[in-house]
Amino acid sequence: MLGFAVVGYGYWGPNIVRNLWETPRASVRWVCDLQTERLAGVRSRYPAVQITEDFDLVLADPGVDAVVIATPVSTHFPLAMRALQAGKHVLVEKPIACRAADAERLVHEAERRGLVLAVDHTFLHTGAVRKMRELVRGMGEIYYYDSVRVNLGLFQHDVSVVWDLAVHDLSILDYVIPVRPTAVSATGVSHVAGEPENIAYLTLHFPGNFIAHIHVNWLAPVKVRQTLIGGSNKMVIYDDLEPSEKIKVYDRGITVSGSPARVGEAIHQMRVGYRTGDMTAPKLDTTEALATELRDFVTCVERRETPVADGRSGLRVVRILEAATRSLALRGETVQLENERAFA
Amino acid sequence: MLGFAVVGYGYWGPNIVRNLWETPRASVRWVCDLQTERLAGVRSRYPAVQITEDFDLVLADPGVDAVVIATPVSTHFPLAMRALQAGKHVLVEKPIACRAADAERLVHEAERRGLVLAVDHTFLHTGAVRKMRELVRGMGEIYYYDSVRVNLGLFQHDVSVVWDLAVHDLSILDYVIPVRPTAVSATGVSHVAGEPENIAYLTLHFPGNFIAHIHVNWLAPVKVRQTLIGGSNKMVIYDDLEPSEKIKVYDRGITVSGSPARVGEAIHQMRVGYRTGDMTAPKLDTTEALATELRDFVTCVERRETPVADGRSGLRVVRILEAATRSLALRGETVQLENERAFA
Amino acid sequence: MLGFAVVGYGYWGPNIVRNLWETPRASVRWVCDLQTERLAGVRSRYPAVQITEDFDLVLADPGVDAVVIATPVSTHFPLAMRALQAGKHVLVEKPIACRAADAERLVHEAERRGLVLAVDHTFLHTGAVRKMRELVRGMGEIYYYDSVRVNLGLFQHDVSVVWDLAVHDLSILDYVIPVRPTAVSATGVSHVAGEPENIAYLTLHFPGNFIAHIHVNWLAPVKVRQTLIGGSNKMVIYDDLEPSEKIKVYDRGITVSGSPARVGEAIHQMRVGYRTGDMTAPKLDTTEALATELRDFVTCVERRETPVADGRSGLRVVRILEAATRSLALRGETVQLENERAFA
Amino acid sequence: MLGFAVVGYGYWGPNIVRNLWETPRASVRWVCDLQTERLAGVRSRYPAVQITEDFDLVLADPGVDAVVIATPVSTHFPLAMRALQAGKHVLVEKPIACRAADAERLVHEAERRGLVLAVDHTFLHTGAVRKMRELVRGMGEIYYYDSVRVNLGLFQHDVSVVWDLAVHDLSILDYVIPVRPTAVSATGVSHVAGEPENIAYLTLHFPGNFIAHIHVNWLAPVKVRQTLIGGSNKMVIYDDLEPSEKIKVYDRGITVSGSPARVGEAIHQMRVGYRTGDMTAPKLDTTEALATELRDFVTCVERRETPVADGRSGLRVVRILEAATRSLALRGETVQLENERAFA
Repeated sequence: MLGFAVVGYGYWGPNIVRNLWETPRASVRWVCDLQTERLAGVRSRYPAVQITEDFDLVLADPGVDAVVIATPVSTHFPLAMRALQAGKHVLVEKPIACRAADAERLVHEAERRGLVLAVDHTFLHTGAVRKMRELVRGMGEIYYYDSVRVNLGLFQHDVSVVWDLAVHDLSILDYVIPVRPTAVSATGVSHVAGEPENIAYLTLHFPGNFIAHIHVNWLAPVKVRQTLIGGSNKMVIYDDLEPSEKIKVYDRGITVSGSPARVGEAIHQMRVGYRTGDMTAPKLDTTEALATELRDFVTCVERRETPVADGRSGLRVVRILEAATRSLALRGETVQLENERAFA
Repeated sequence: MLGFAVVGYGYWGPNIVRNLWETPRASVRWVCDLQTERLAGVRSRYPAVQITEDFDLVLADPGVDAVVIATPVSTHFPLAMRALQAGKHVLVEKPIACRAADAERLVHEAERRGLVLAVDHTFLHTGAVRKMRELVRGMGEIYYYDSVRVNLGLFQHDVSVVWDLAVHDLSILDYVIPVRPTAVSATGVSHVAGEPENIAYLTLHFPGNFIAHIHVNWLAPVKVRQTLIGGSNKMVIYDDLEPSEKIKVYDRGITVSGSPARVGEAIHQMRVGYRTGDMTAPKLDTTEALATELRDFVTCVERRETPVADGRSGLRVVRILEAATRSLALRGETVQLENERAFA
Repeated sequence: MLGFAVVGYGYWGPNIVRNLWETPRASVRWVCDLQTERLAGVRSRYPAVQITEDFDLVLADPGVDAVVIATPVSTHFPLAMRALQAGKHVLVEKPIACRAADAERLVHEAERRGLVLAVDHTFLHTGAVRKMRELVRGMGEIYYYDSVRVNLGLFQHDVSVVWDLAVHDLSILDYVIPVRPTAVSATGVSHVAGEPENIAYLTLHFPGNFIAHIHVNWLAPVKVRQTLIGGSNKMVIYDDLEPSEKIKVYDRGITVSGSPARVGEAIHQMRVGYRTGDMTAPKLDTTEALATELRDFVTCVERRETPVADGRSGLRVVRILEAATRSLALRGETVQLENERAFA
Repeated sequence: MLGFAVVGYGYWGPNIVRNLWETPRASVRWVCDLQTERLAGVRSRYPAVQITEDFDLVLADPGVDAVVIATPVSTHFPLAMRALQAGKHVLVEKPIACRAADAERLVHEAERRGLVLAVDHTFLHTGAVRKMRELVRGMGEIYYYDSVRVNLGLFQHDVSVVWDLAVHDLSILDYVIPVRPTAVSATGVSHVAGEPENIAYLTLHFPGNFIAHIHVNWLAPVKVRQTLIGGSNKMVIYDDLEPSEKIKVYDRGITVSGSPARVGEAIHQMRVGYRTGDMTAPKLDTTEALATELRDFVTCVERRETPVADGRSGLRVVRILEAATRSLALRGETVQLENERAFA
């Protein structure tokens, strides 16, 4: 039985506690939050759980094996670092930290101590995204990844729409697509003076001619959650708002015949044709993502395995967020992504 | 009665002839094309129309008042220039020319001679786009314009997807939004060696914090034609594939209270709230766009008026296409748009 | 403060307890169920609530003012009757009873004792259905009401799809449309030997030329919840699965000019034309229906008012369910509905 | 080369002539209509085709092998009969006649003379309906067929919505489902005094527990063309308004375990479970239905084969239309369908 403490009981914390409650071989020992009325909510709902405003008390409890951090973004790094230093396994809300340098330090600390560090990239645990990862392996050459994530959303004061929404797409992209971006170009604006960007467009450049693009917007009249992946054999549409057919696989594409030959001379010998076939919406696992994620985390801690969304994937995502923020400030100028090798 | 010649009888030419046939005070005197079998099609369908492969013959006919040019893009400029120089009014397929310099020369030539020069930005004549222009005037501050125009499309060998598809969005944007872009940033790739880009993303920068973005793609599994316009009072969705409710107006937006004050100090005093109300899909005029366009063109020629899509709007669109092409080659680097004043 | 007992803690009971918990001036004193493990669930979740398997204990508690009955349909009548006889106000799950005669006895008993008797026709408390009732008053002459409620559903052993699903439509119809049906004609079949009908079609006949039709099916590949109401001024579509635009009002209809005159002679003088205008999706109240319903019930008990869904509306619905069941057995033969006057 | 005459050049006639024009081994010799301006339209468009108001002239031409009748419904029988008596093969617009007795006489006459008699059940020649017929053979036991065909439609003065719209569903049902209905029950009303029904619901009873239902309505705010077919192995949705995925096949259904045993005793031993799997939208042939139909008709005439929609299928459909009309007048009373054997 693994002892858990949950830090932060605002929007996401209650979902974590509710799911941990049902997770085999896990018990919730503590909920920690700075707001008294939230803790009162825990007490009435889960009388057996200890509540406190004092994080040190939590860390001092030898019965706590793992800490889940669901606090505001700016506190992820210090809280996670203290938990690791106290010898606890850690699962952090996304994004893992505000700065890539901080994320790196967390990764180092966890690896040094042999602790499990996971980041709550929830979507990776949905049936739809897992199916998409599986499908991508059979789609031939992957041409592009295009995602739209817009709605009339809760404006954040401390982070831009990129850190709030694009973080989901970046984590899915990191999981589904087996190559890493080399540069990012982002444009966007803020429509409220003094506030961060509420609309943004990110292009991710990759080796070869694969391209990824993400559109995020807090000011859209309707909610859209749609991703297109184009491959040479198949194409996929992932619509997260569809009640059951979230993934559609199209047996469509282009056929190229002839040879490109010398450009400017024989170029018109190439023929680009079309191929259309059946569309299939595969059956998906409908287990709640958070339930799967917590079960996986428990198993990883027990066996000292690497979780699906480990600290390094959290770090990769933060690196792109950081580069995108720089590019935004430069009105779309391409910003190179640090070579991953350099890190190791 | 205005005498017309139609040059080019490939994909679009037959639609022009069919609609001109029904246009009051217009008569089709010539159809000109280089392919004999196409001209045979004209003869069997419209026995009264003269056919020829010789453009000079057409220009020499004093009964020809106006020439419609529906030929491949690269020939727009020379044919249109010759027609203007022969004293004919001209309606050119979009884009008006391959290069902004050529488009400028056409505009100058037409203005010098007092001839009507129009470009076939067909969408401006649809009930949906006209309604959108009207709506934009009552939407308060306009925040953004976002358009997606993707499908499994006919690959073009001579022009990229930007010149083929984004030209529609740029012409609609030019018509609907009363401000002009100052710079463009575009990313995209080609997935067939030796061929132009088949997927592209354009961001248009404007004075203030209005932003426009266009996504065009020939390699999408499904057809999408969707535009979002966000304003401070209302938001609009234009879905051209909806059979009847192409325009939806949402009485939604944000409410900002408090004052931004000094950044870093009082920023959290601002409150961004939400407002949601009814959605309305206004009834739209369903007349075929090309019929409206040709009727307007005839009226403009008769009264020497400026058409809805005149040579200058054709030029503005080509300038952006050219700048986007440069930005594409620079992987998204922002390219300034020539100051329009400089032209006049 | 009104003391409540909830009887039945299976599928719906937990929702009732959760909502009662948040209802002002209401307190949950008892949960009663025959299954021990369900009561254990109550204890862990609501330690302050008394649990029992003994209904008499509940009725004997003078602190219990009202009883909510959420047990299997066949027990609605005996439990509700005993609660009324013990002087408690009663809210019963739908349908109010298995037989119209039983429903009548409940209505009589409640009226005789001056107790509030309500039936849990939950949909009447949704923003969508309340808006629909309001809209119907301005739609001119009402032509028809057509509803489709199908899905791949949980087969019931004790009741047919009519008692399980059409009961919702009948309660909405009773609430939204101000006239009462005079007869019903129903067809349907069972596809599992020995089981009740799993697909059925009901036509309700009314005075004049208003007609209502309900299609219910447990064996559909997809879930549909769609109602059309046609009127001479407006038409409405209610789609309960739409996330936000559940109600759409169409300014469409027919225009009849000329006079019908003598049939067989002047009939062709009549002209039926069309009128199309805007479509509007009004903003709806999104409060959870059960929360509104329980608050209304408390107010009705406090003030001895008639609830929106009182015993008589529960009775009217059961009368139609009974008549439809007879018509089903007669392969669609029309069954007259008992005159409501006869009851009073 | 088969010589054709087309009688009736109103709404559908021009489509027939246009498609016949492209049909191999067919030539259009005559178009016959009573309205001079329509014939003028033929002359300007097809100068080589002879035009006349005199049907006898057409029948007297030995170069005419086949006659296509696209006139008002009430004239189908007399014109088709005269054409058969003149030794011509005949293709008649749907429905084949106003009365089953007349349809029978046409079938007899054609069979007696060895002539091909076809009815223009156009939908049977679409890729979607042909695919559906093919699919039904692998769907296991067929449970139900449910179709909705509604719109804000052109009111007909001479026929009810059943003869105008349900005729399509009945012809598709006859083609797709290999069993014949035994009885029909129909309800509906007219909302315009003196006019035929504009809304109707038909239930078709079959041997066993297969059931079919058709909803037709000229007064709906939106257009719907949707058919559900439920089978024990698969379920199908056919949505004719979908641009490309008109047919969706769902690998869903129920699983029945246990045995029904003696009713009233062991009934609860039965378990009805659910099975859900992938959904597939098969690629469909997109050839224009009328083109396929005319090509088939030509082949049938050349080889004296039975067309897909022969006179007997036209007769079966009219018999159901007639029975439905009787049932409508009886407010849903079941009307038996004449035994097909009796005819032969």
